[in-house]
Amino acid sequence: MVGPELERLIALLGRLPGLGPRSARRAALHLLKRREALMLPLADALAQAATAVRPCGVCNAWDERDPCAICADPARDRTAMCVVAEVGDLWALERSGGWRGVYHVLGGLLSAIDGRDADAIGVDRLAARVRAEPVREVVLALSATVEGQTTADVVADALAGGDVAVSRLAQGVPFGGELDHLDDGTLIAAMRARRANS
Amino acid sequence: MVGPELERLIALLGRLPGLGPRSARRAALHLLKRREALMLPLADALAQAATAVRPCGVCNAWDERDPCAICADPARDRTAMCVVAEVGDLWALERSGGWRGVYHVLGGLLSAIDGRDADAIGVDRLAARVRAEPVREVVLALSATVEGQTTADVVADALAGGDVAVSRLAQGVPFGGELDHLDDGTLIAAMRARRANS
Repeated sequence: MVGPELERLIALLGRLPGLGPRSARRAALHLLKRREALMLPLADALAQAATAVRPCGVCNAWDERDPCAICADPARDRTAMCVVAEVGDLWALERSGGWRGVYHVLGGLLSAIDGRDADAIGVDRLAARVRAEPVREVVLALSATVEGQTTADVVADALAGGDVAVSRLAQGVPFGGELDHLDDGTLIAAMRARRANS
Repeated sequence: MVGPELERLIALLGRLPGLGPRSARRAALHLLKRREALMLPLADALAQAATAVRPCGVCNAWDERDPCAICADPARDRTAMCVVAEVGDLWALERSGGWRGVYHVLGGLLSAIDGRDADAIGVDRLAARVRAEPVREVVLALSATVEGQTTADVVADALAGGDVAVSRLAQGVPFGGELDHLDDGTLIAAMRARRANS
């Protein structure tokens, strides 16, 4: 019903997260109606970004500069390093405005299923970086999942023995979280970590 | 936090239907992790399709050929024409397998708000095509909305007086539709159009 070029476009769009076959067709039609304003600029932006965006040689985040904008920023506190799994986690923390130190992006979590071991996420490289830089605190900002906590354990082991304080994100009730919708694990963690009323 | 090329990519991705700012960032990361397998092929497919896909000179559907694959198919019944608003509607009908005639794509519905009048959707062009071709039935497959039904009225008026039977899609309970979740208009239409048990 549609030609091979359009088939190919719809198939590739359908591989984006959040777009299924139906929404990929809708996206293709949306693009074809906006060739000059959206379709060709998007083609160009994809090709440009694919070339321009590279991992930062220091922290492994993606940026068009190396070192990246954060590593190159003299206002960042180089004694405090936040370890995240993915660049998307770094972006989320930056949006929150809750961190003024530097980052280290592992590029994934340890996963037996996906065959990702400590080498694949560069645990030794991270440990060497922490030793070489004036880092005094490392915050392990990893997901509160089995894989995230396993990864945090392995990273914490690799950093043990040095002169570095290792911490993890607090667990508890999220903003807007309703108690009767929270899982037991979160409730137990929030209760254990309860704080005195101030 | 991210460079201008990446900002631009995320902004353009966020203009796709179904992708908001958050999912556009996720899509950008997904693409950057798959440069060779997805990102560069998608850039190429967008540029190729933007050039290759054009409106069919006969029915106004988009295809890489002109006339399009459907208009060029000798097995199609040229006496039966289905009028749709958008190419996506044509695709939906083709997937359903419920139509073996030809199509005519208006390119939109009449809309006072969007300033789309009968000229903009080519009502005269459709009427001329119906007169010039051996069409005996025209099915108006337009949305069951105010704009869709207004458009159907205008198209039916333009075709009146000729030797052509004009029909519309049946309205009723959709497959899987639960009665107590349906709106009153659908229930009334389904009741009025009730059919004898066979």
